[in-house]
Amino acid sequence: MPSPLLQARDTARQFSDRFARSAATARGVHLPTADFPEWLAERGRVNAFRVDRIPLARLDGWSFQETTGNLMHRSGRFFTIEGLHVTERDGPYGDGPYADWHQPVIKQPEVGILGILVKEFDGVLHFLMQAKMEPGNPNLLQLSPTVQATRSNYTKAHRGADVKYIEHFVGPGRGRIVADVLQSEHGSWFYRKSNRNMIVEAVGDVPLLDDFCWLTLGQIAELLHRDNVVNMDSRTVLSCLPVAPTASSALHCDADLLSWITGERARHDVHAERVPLAGLPGWRRHDMAIEHEDGRYFTVVAVAVQAGNREVTSWTQPLFEPVGLGVTAFLTRTFDGIPHVLVHARVEGGFLDTVELGPTVQYTPGNYAHLPDKERPLFLDTVLEVPPDRIRYEAVHSEEGGRFLNAESRYLVVDADEREAPLDPPPGYAWVTPDQLTWLVRHGHYLNVQARTLLACLNATLAGRR
Amino acid sequence: MPSPLLQARDTARQFSDRFARSAATARGVHLPTADFPEWLAERGRVNAFRVDRIPLARLDGWSFQETTGNLMHRSGRFFTIEGLHVTERDGPYGDGPYADWHQPVIKQPEVGILGILVKEFDGVLHFLMQAKMEPGNPNLLQLSPTVQATRSNYTKAHRGADVKYIEHFVGPGRGRIVADVLQSEHGSWFYRKSNRNMIVEAVGDVPLLDDFCWLTLGQIAELLHRDNVVNMDSRTVLSCLPVAPTASSALHCDADLLSWITGERARHDVHAERVPLAGLPGWRRHDMAIEHEDGRYFTVVAVAVQAGNREVTSWTQPLFEPVGLGVTAFLTRTFDGIPHVLVHARVEGGFLDTVELGPTVQYTPGNYAHLPDKERPLFLDTVLEVPPDRIRYEAVHSEEGGRFLNAESRYLVVDADEREAPLDPPPGYAWVTPDQLTWLVRHGHYLNVQARTLLACLNATLAGRR
Repeated sequence: MPSPLLQARDTARQFSDRFARSAATARGVHLPTADFPEWLAERGRVNAFRVDRIPLARLDGWSFQETTGNLMHRSGRFFTIEGLHVTERDGPYGDGPYADWHQPVIKQPEVGILGILVKEFDGVLHFLMQAKMEPGNPNLLQLSPTVQATRSNYTKAHRGADVKYIEHFVGPGRGRIVADVLQSEHGSWFYRKSNRNMIVEAVGDVPLLDDFCWLTLGQIAELLHRDNVVNMDSRTVLSCLPVAPTASSALHCDADLLSWITGERARHDVHAERVPLAGLPGWRRHDMAIEHEDGRYFTVVAVAVQAGNREVTSWTQPLFEPVGLGVTAFLTRTFDGIPHVLVHARVEGGFLDTVELGPTVQYTPGNYAHLPDKERPLFLDTVLEVPPDRIRYEAVHSEEGGRFLNAESRYLVVDADEREAPLDPPPGYAWVTPDQLTWLVRHGHYLNVQARTLLACLNATLAGRR
Repeated sequence: MPSPLLQARDTARQFSDRFARSAATARGVHLPTADFPEWLAERGRVNAFRVDRIPLARLDGWSFQETTGNLMHRSGRFFTIEGLHVTERDGPYGDGPYADWHQPVIKQPEVGILGILVKEFDGVLHFLMQAKMEPGNPNLLQLSPTVQATRSNYTKAHRGADVKYIEHFVGPGRGRIVADVLQSEHGSWFYRKSNRNMIVEAVGDVPLLDDFCWLTLGQIAELLHRDNVVNMDSRTVLSCLPVAPTASSALHCDADLLSWITGERARHDVHAERVPLAGLPGWRRHDMAIEHEDGRYFTVVAVAVQAGNREVTSWTQPLFEPVGLGVTAFLTRTFDGIPHVLVHARVEGGFLDTVELGPTVQYTPGNYAHLPDKERPLFLDTVLEVPPDRIRYEAVHSEEGGRFLNAESRYLVVDADEREAPLDPPPGYAWVTPDQLTWLVRHGHYLNVQARTLLACLNATLAGRR
């Protein structure tokens, strides 16, 4: 670049080569992967942490508002739990089913930062990860991004308070931007929530604080193959890595893929309206939970938390607890040598823009067990019945432990054949390459959070093989 | 491409070469540009069309709802006019102004199609454009895309009704997709309105119907230099053309540009809430209009329309009529040989996602005439006072004539210097290249409709010079 003022527009390639090297490096300079479980366990011992279920009435500082029945904190901060009424009118040409449902939903309008700091040691990029307790995690302690900060956190931080390492992500001294994009969170549980997903390369020295460790991408890939180690916030940030494309072709050119997404958005006529939580049709409030009258979907519960390593050492809060283990999977096929995954254009009531691309399968099977065969979700049985030799990836991961209790899903990537997953799939489904997912995830609201987890897992299955 | 199944992902380059040829072609096979004014005038004579202002009470089929005062059609179709309450809390670090206002807003949730069909004649791509009457256009008749269809239009069309040429855009026989993206419309007047912007290359013969003509991109570029010829719908679709990049560098690399946009979205804490039109603070309803008590911004008025070439030959409808001529401009500077324009991260109450990139200047000067100097909008005076030799582009264009009455703006591209527009601009502004705008406009909700008009105009200034 001969100019002192200008930069090359495309920096992804420079980064992607360096990330490939990190992915191929199974041994980090700071902590061998074999020692990781003991390191994490030690962080758990140092930071005592206890979570107990309590009756909703024992929530401290939280209350159900008189007229709406919405659950909110007296400070007006954190989040509220309200009602949502979703209607989807009939299909594009008047031939689809009419859907209409009510549900509780979490409203948390502020945009937080999920950020991973990276830095080169011995010529290899390492990722600064944090052992972080979240009350909803089944094992409490998981590996989180360097920074997980709400807006109140980091604007306060700007005035001198302490979100550790936040200065690398905002303000004049921040590092070199690798990725920075607003991504949606769970559209079935949150109302239009998005967080800023950031990857930043540090400038200068970075002190290593307690509860943090530097890991290569190869190490993280190995941990992504274990159950409940890499938390959701880490997975979504990792999905935004500029991985180098492996092929220049695909079943659908990019213009056709964008057109398909646009068409899916245009054909779904969805309206989501916030309504009072009180009297929400189909939902009942008991001492210990708000639950659906059929016992399906999820419940709203309360917990009391006692922790050592948090700014506030004890608190109570509501959490959403899904009913049963989810199954979240990409079916995959290779066409003319190029692997593809089958994405599903999903409507979730809380999405900002109607539809995002989700995995082939994203269901809690128990919610559908009562349905007759022909109404069962497409592709679900294929995933449930797949023989082990066709599973390319499998691990149990949990969703955001700050809002969701024991929200575990089995994440899979499963080989399929023409009979199970045809080249010409049903409406609402399309075959895309992982390269195309990486291209889309640079922008917000294309991939839902479950698809982003699977993209991070797909990349992890390739780590070390480059 | 050796594979029978796969396609090259990137088709933009193939198309951009062909569009460059079309842009360099000043003479189309169908209609010489010199004959265009007479052709358009003839279409006006054939299609008699008359628009009269009427009192709001004489709207036929439209009425103000009893409790809300919202203006709606008895069929529930078309659109409604409601109230909007917008609040923007203080800036990112508590140092910004707190904004709070009420306004009428148009709610039209369904997604329409704005589509231009292209086809090669004598080796050059031609665009199928339509002479279309819209009641709000100051000169009634302008050049519109091939298809301007609401969702009800084109879903009805699917059952056999007649949106001309719609079969090229939807359904199994449609053409080859060049661009297909959901783009926002005026965020100051519409509540979360978006339309599908499509460019499609026809497959097979295309009959030429009355009121339609084939023009090269070079011809359209020439018409874009004339006042009130190319309508807003055409301009926004034209902005989505995959123009080939001219440089691989810019002041900010793409990752930094995306990060800046993400940061602007995250730092603005905007809430827009629909409220009843009745009793909207600051707004008053008279016989002939709903207007702001200070006489600023816009009014809601009613018109009666009599037309010859429309499905329905006469109707009445409300329109928004802005107060005064707008000024919409990009300041431009060349850094190390690469032209840049100064974009503004704008908050408009009706945007889906808080902020979109707008022109440097987008104001109706009269709305600010009462303000003291230091509160005047940034860069406005620079544009108003610019000497003619620094104007790179200038024309008056009007906004959507189906919703807006005499909504004219002077669109300009103006050379600036370091004193007027510094290399390091104020917060909320950034220098970007036209290449970067073309890269962003492939995805929805990055560029607002005024910036898209200016992008189409920028491309028009380059046509013929390639």
